[in-house]
Amino acid sequence: MILQENERIDKIGFGGFELIQDVKEFCYGIDAVLLADFAASVSRKNKRIFDLGTGTGIIPLILSHKLPNCHVTGVEIQEASAKRAKRNICFNGLEDRIDILNCDIINMPKSYREAADVVVSNPPYMEKGGAIVSTGDAKAIARHETTAGLKDFFEAASKLLGKGGEFFMVHRPARLSDIFCYSREAGFEAKTMRLVSPKEGAAPNIVLMHFVKGAGKELKVLKALNVYEEDGRYTEEIMRIYERDK
Amino acid sequence: MILQENERIDKIGFGGFELIQDVKEFCYGIDAVLLADFAASVSRKNKRIFDLGTGTGIIPLILSHKLPNCHVTGVEIQEASAKRAKRNICFNGLEDRIDILNCDIINMPKSYREAADVVVSNPPYMEKGGAIVSTGDAKAIARHETTAGLKDFFEAASKLLGKGGEFFMVHRPARLSDIFCYSREAGFEAKTMRLVSPKEGAAPNIVLMHFVKGAGKELKVLKALNVYEEDGRYTEEIMRIYERDK
Repeated sequence: MILQENERIDKIGFGGFELIQDVKEFCYGIDAVLLADFAASVSRKNKRIFDLGTGTGIIPLILSHKLPNCHVTGVEIQEASAKRAKRNICFNGLEDRIDILNCDIINMPKSYREAADVVVSNPPYMEKGGAIVSTGDAKAIARHETTAGLKDFFEAASKLLGKGGEFFMVHRPARLSDIFCYSREAGFEAKTMRLVSPKEGAAPNIVLMHFVKGAGKELKVLKALNVYEEDGRYTEEIMRIYERDK
Repeated sequence: MILQENERIDKIGFGGFELIQDVKEFCYGIDAVLLADFAASVSRKNKRIFDLGTGTGIIPLILSHKLPNCHVTGVEIQEASAKRAKRNICFNGLEDRIDILNCDIINMPKSYREAADVVVSNPPYMEKGGAIVSTGDAKAIARHETTAGLKDFFEAASKLLGKGGEFFMVHRPARLSDIFCYSREAGFEAKTMRLVSPKEGAAPNIVLMHFVKGAGKELKVLKALNVYEEDGRYTEEIMRIYERDK
């Protein structure tokens, strides 16, 4: 595999996968890993999965490892990221398990209607218009809502799913009002929520959400997930999620 | 003070207050105490407070103690509870600080429009139609939505408040979708949320919410509040809220 300028290869574990990332662009964080594990643990339906805003393909890679029977389609608006995602799929020999689609989630082909059993997404966290975004900056597009806002992610997920289809999202707790309201507007009902805190006794800074299209009311709020112990090491649960030994 | 059949007097602390309750009816729990403390801690405006569904007046009693400059109006649909609330106010010498209004929150007099700076509510948790409710059962009316549903509590609070007015509510985490969606529909934005767990590492079973009418987006999620230590004693924070020494 030939690396391009600014690229590096990271060993990400999960079956020995390696990931090409551009150090000058958005590199995946713990949020993507937590979302993939949350979806793999909670979902009962895991055949046809779509990842909205897949970046360099980290979530499809982890899901293909955690769910041996799934096929994942990663959707990415940025051409350079989508190309890198495709190279990552080849690099790890997963051409049969993962497809990458270079398009805007608000303009998905009609043939994808109800094409998914499960949709996952780690969307940009910063709200549209919330900060100045310099055009053409790949890192900014990955972090800020540009063409698609949070509402569009719910609508795109809803189109991909039939009744009973599941949508998993990771986001910031500060956006919970939007998350709950937009999800209902798009036909979802929130069924499971898990807050993630840096450590025990700290305010949460990540939220994992599980929605079901057309489901009845009743949200299950799980116990919080703490990332670090007091001494700065990962907690036992995070080590399990990363599939590392203590 | 002459007690009636089935009544008992509880010492509730908070300035030496005593509360008459009917042992056969709904008796206040920790939820009411946590809500009063949450509102008293978070609110910046605490002159004119309304408590929707005040029961025997526990929340007005605690608030009058925690906020020395406030006046509280407790609204209660059940005549027997409202009468008992009035006796509790007299019993504790708080006639100048607390009024009790015996009416349905969905039929509040028009003169109360924007009459409040702050509204608090510990509404019935069980959803309308969710379980069979025997008519005339005071305990059932306190626990189940009967005439007023959750949405009505948001609408009633919104009518009582002007722009910038604050609404504090305690409820079950299972109803968070309704809570977020109904609050926006009534013109509120959720600003602060705190989940309460029986003990550290357990799933939360109570949620404290703070809304501001007409406010901008951005929810602050506080660290969780744990009620009990591993050994079954109250945590330090709960002892502080109850104003008890260890």
